[in-house]
Amino acid sequence: MKKSANTTDEWLVKGVCEAIRKRRLALEITQDDLAKRCGLHRTYVSDIERGARNLSLRNLQRLSEALELKPSELIRSAENQKKHNNDE
Amino acid sequence: MKKSANTTDEWLVKGVCEAIRKRRLALEITQDDLAKRCGLHRTYVSDIERGARNLSLRNLQRLSEALELKPSELIRSAENQKKHNNDE
Repeated sequence: MKKSANTTDEWLVKGVCEAIRKRRLALEITQDDLAKRCGLHRTYVSDIERGARNLSLRNLQRLSEALELKPSELIRSAENQKKHNNDE
Repeated sequence: MKKSANTTDEWLVKGVCEAIRKRRLALEITQDDLAKRCGLHRTYVSDIERGARNLSLRNLQRLSEALELKPSELIRSAENQKKHNNDE
C-alpha cells in the first residue's frame, strides 16, 4: 500500500484547481465574476486557483455549475494532467 | 442564476457517497477494511457512506485509490444517478 503523505498525492486537488483557472480564463471572466456566479468569496476563489484549498465536493459542484461544465470534466482534466506528467 | 441553497444541490456529495458504498460492497470489503486501506478512520468512512460528510478532493483521491477506481468514475456515477433521477 502506498503512503498517502507525500507531495505527489496532491495531484487531484492541484489538477482540479488548475482546470478551474483555465476554464475561467477561457470564459474570459474575472475571479470576482466567478465568485459572484457561485456565491463564494473572491479570496476563496483566488485560494482555490492557487491550489491552496482542499476543495470539497459541495464547492466543486458550485464552481462547475458556474463554469458551465460537469464536475467530471474538471476531474478528468486533472487525471489527464497527471497522466501527462507521469509520461514525461 | 439558480440558487445554490436548496436540497437538490447536494446531488454530487450524495451521489459520490452512494457510489463509494456500492463499490466497497462490490469489492466485498468492510468499512473497516476500506478505512485501513486509505488511512482514514472507520467512523469517517461510515459518515461518508451515509452522505453525512462533504468529502474533500484529497479524501476522494485516497478513497478512489483504495477502491481501485479513478476519481472521475465516482463522479460520473453521481452524474448518471442525477440524470436518472431527473428523467423519472
